[in-house]
Amino acid sequence: MTRTKPAGTPLGDDFHVYDTTLRDGAQREGIAYSVTDKLAVARLLDHLGVGFIEGGWPGALPKDTEFFRRAAEGELALEHAALVAFGSTRRSGIAVDEDPQVAALLESRAPVVTLVAKSDRRHIESALRTDVDDNCAMIADTVRHLVDNGRRVFVDAEHFFDGYAHDPDTSLRVLEAAAGAGADVVVLCDTNGGQLPLQLAETVSEVISRTGLRVGIHCQDDTDCAVANSVAAVQAGATHVQCTANGYGERAGNADLFAVLGNLGVKLGMPVLPEGKLPELTRVSHALAEIANLAPDTHQAYVGHSAFAHKAGLHASAIKVDPELYNHMDPAAVGNDMRVLVTEMAGRASLELKGAELGLDLSQRPDAVGGAVQRVKELEARGWSFEAADASLELLLRRELSGDELETPFELDSYRVVLDHADDGGVLAEATVRVTVGGSREIATAEGNGPVNALDAALRKALVPHLPWLEAVELADYKVRILVDEPGTDAVTRVLVESRDGEQEWTTVGVHANIVEASWLALCDALIYKALH
Amino acid sequence: MTRTKPAGTPLGDDFHVYDTTLRDGAQREGIAYSVTDKLAVARLLDHLGVGFIEGGWPGALPKDTEFFRRAAEGELALEHAALVAFGSTRRSGIAVDEDPQVAALLESRAPVVTLVAKSDRRHIESALRTDVDDNCAMIADTVRHLVDNGRRVFVDAEHFFDGYAHDPDTSLRVLEAAAGAGADVVVLCDTNGGQLPLQLAETVSEVISRTGLRVGIHCQDDTDCAVANSVAAVQAGATHVQCTANGYGERAGNADLFAVLGNLGVKLGMPVLPEGKLPELTRVSHALAEIANLAPDTHQAYVGHSAFAHKAGLHASAIKVDPELYNHMDPAAVGNDMRVLVTEMAGRASLELKGAELGLDLSQRPDAVGGAVQRVKELEARGWSFEAADASLELLLRRELSGDELETPFELDSYRVVLDHADDGGVLAEATVRVTVGGSREIATAEGNGPVNALDAALRKALVPHLPWLEAVELADYKVRILVDEPGTDAVTRVLVESRDGEQEWTTVGVHANIVEASWLALCDALIYKALH
Repeated sequence: MTRTKPAGTPLGDDFHVYDTTLRDGAQREGIAYSVTDKLAVARLLDHLGVGFIEGGWPGALPKDTEFFRRAAEGELALEHAALVAFGSTRRSGIAVDEDPQVAALLESRAPVVTLVAKSDRRHIESALRTDVDDNCAMIADTVRHLVDNGRRVFVDAEHFFDGYAHDPDTSLRVLEAAAGAGADVVVLCDTNGGQLPLQLAETVSEVISRTGLRVGIHCQDDTDCAVANSVAAVQAGATHVQCTANGYGERAGNADLFAVLGNLGVKLGMPVLPEGKLPELTRVSHALAEIANLAPDTHQAYVGHSAFAHKAGLHASAIKVDPELYNHMDPAAVGNDMRVLVTEMAGRASLELKGAELGLDLSQRPDAVGGAVQRVKELEARGWSFEAADASLELLLRRELSGDELETPFELDSYRVVLDHADDGGVLAEATVRVTVGGSREIATAEGNGPVNALDAALRKALVPHLPWLEAVELADYKVRILVDEPGTDAVTRVLVESRDGEQEWTTVGVHANIVEASWLALCDALIYKALH
Repeated sequence: MTRTKPAGTPLGDDFHVYDTTLRDGAQREGIAYSVTDKLAVARLLDHLGVGFIEGGWPGALPKDTEFFRRAAEGELALEHAALVAFGSTRRSGIAVDEDPQVAALLESRAPVVTLVAKSDRRHIESALRTDVDDNCAMIADTVRHLVDNGRRVFVDAEHFFDGYAHDPDTSLRVLEAAAGAGADVVVLCDTNGGQLPLQLAETVSEVISRTGLRVGIHCQDDTDCAVANSVAAVQAGATHVQCTANGYGERAGNADLFAVLGNLGVKLGMPVLPEGKLPELTRVSHALAEIANLAPDTHQAYVGHSAFAHKAGLHASAIKVDPELYNHMDPAAVGNDMRVLVTEMAGRASLELKGAELGLDLSQRPDAVGGAVQRVKELEARGWSFEAADASLELLLRRELSGDELETPFELDSYRVVLDHADDGGVLAEATVRVTVGGSREIATAEGNGPVNALDAALRKALVPHLPWLEAVELADYKVRILVDEPGTDAVTRVLVESRDGEQEWTTVGVHANIVEASWLALCDALIYKALH
């Protein structure tokens, strides 16, 4: 029997970090991975050093079948992880070697297969419409068939905790059928996600002592306890933990891989990742959010942009004394940063710290700090936010320091944008900008696929002949937030523009009731910032 | 001594549901409550039936001082909750009745005061720069002074768990100083949020058995365990739990009130809210997100839009058999719904269920279902999403059923939008629309504060003379999402428009590279939907 040992995890086969982002995570509302996306996700997870990557359900979903084919044909070279195909046991009433779904699992060429098996008597009877004996035979036949064909097999005992509470003997029989046929790990699944940690830990510990089997854990987040439940299960003896990146998954999601790794790796000191990989958590988390096309959760434990960010004046002044007293750990251990937020609640201490982060010494200029605090307060009251727009904040501080006169090589004077949807359905966006640069007034017109794209193109057309460095600057990301204010007043639009030029990235903000004007303000700040660096 | 008993909570003073959204929650990056917002938040929390509402820090933040003043002057009539002022103990080296910050607590007229006190020796020494005796004297003096002035006092033992691990005797002395001076509850705070549930429960239980004191719990979410930790602490004997709405708070946030109430109320069966209030959880959670001006977390446990939503084809077909087997509880118990998502993973079963939700019988029209599945797949591949846009999905299904010919009383033919930013800084948005209605072609031009507002105004101007029902329709919400696709391809913009007319609300979607065109598509769907109802 093949034993596919995770190569990179220091705990080797003694402990399994098992990722199911590509299968269970993909069930999150809003996620639709392409095959290319799936390959990119697998590469990042492997780079991080997880032991097992569940790639999908070959035979059931065409994209997953293709993913395994392309992986097997060489597009996925894994350094640390073993690739896992997910599938169900043979159907009732047919031989295992005649079940096309089981055949597809072998055809996927994945060295490991995780089978989902019913372990709650009610589900066996009402959803499968069969009895416990038949269910156990389906499991045992399928496990044995896959093991005989050289695969390593894990079994996900679906609805285990609910089933065990309802009828423990049936649930244990299912585990024993799986293990008896050669499954290496029986994974206790809180499929409906209703568990709380103290009880769950008791159940895990009881199952281990009653069966002596190697037990894994798979938690859904319906009580907001998936991470806690996973960690509690490990403390109770589970040696295989199934997670998804950023907790993606159906309904409230799954246990978040990064929080589980943070808790096991940092809090409990378990060597769950290869040496030096914990500091990759933040980067990998954000990259996986990008591939899923979801905004990273700013408040995510360990890896969120705000996870170590302090806002209140109280803490901000104390942090100047001793940062370690106000963080539960060193943010760098998981690749994150401590940021100090500038908001109306923060006092001068915050702004001075922020100035130091930006390389501006404000300690000798209390007038400028006072002016900047005031200006930030005024702008934030009107919907601006500098928390994510360091470049605009820097310009604000520089304007205060320079008495509102920033020396820039251009003036961005005015624009006109025309958007046209003709009777025949044709759609057109055109922008004209007027700028003063190198002593002369320039007018340029450009088309784009939308108003901001057209404005950006027209600005370049007007400025690049005078300022060739502008050629390298590109709009890397563009975010829009509609801010609904007090009832009866108008909503304003906040635009964040992220720019880059190959050397650095910077973010600017613009706010206006008119989305195009807000974008213009952020685009102008982006160019002015670059002109000053 | 006054005892302010929560009037509405069935457990009365035996168990405290204590909300600190307005103080600790407000420290979340992105939240900036006005005083009016704060009053609205307090009214919603009181309506829900929490026992205590911490309103802020009078004397430290001007908005909070004003909030307490306006509350005391009659703007906040509480039915269930007692209002709590938060503050710190007297400063070192001055008499308690000379400390202006302590005076501000009394001046707030809040019947309950929660004092924050250092309970970690390292913080006492390095942040307060004093010793344990002095710290205990500061706590005892302040508690006694407030109690003597008729206030009920709770003490938040800051950094308790870290302090207790480092030097348990100091931490226990702090608790005893507080209780000895008349504090009713000593609240163990996991201020840095680094705890895990099994250990935290042990500590809580140990503290209770060593001191015999009434203990509360306050958890931050830095390990993604704040909710689990809070529930575990209650199971270990804590009888006072501090939470924030939707888990808002600094860094990774606090324990989410709604998940804690769901877990205590539904999972553990504790009567934590007045009779009939648990089904308000979803509504109140979303309303509080609106006031905080944050998008509700769609994947939040219990109350998220997706918390009971099933996506996968596997589950979607099983749900048709027995919904109870696939939810950890009845969603209606917390005021939520089971939705079936329409996505490329879902099969025909999902779409038929969705049709039934929308009141369309599709079982006799397999051709239309097939066509609709195909059309949804195509559109979702191009960035559309119908998960939140039921009205657009209904139009899509109706178009399939009617062979693409929907009878509408108007045709929306074309538009032109001009956006102008003049040299003098003046900004203008103007839209012209051309429509066919009542047999004639109408052209109308209107100004607005932005392109979409101008388009909306022009559409009304053209249509209302023919279709007076349109007068009641208003644009209730407008959301924009920039979708960055594969590298090298253009980003598209997805716009969601929520409309209402006093009787119902409906959401439509539009997708295009041009944000104004995407908005136009969603606006058109919104009007067509209304015309068909």
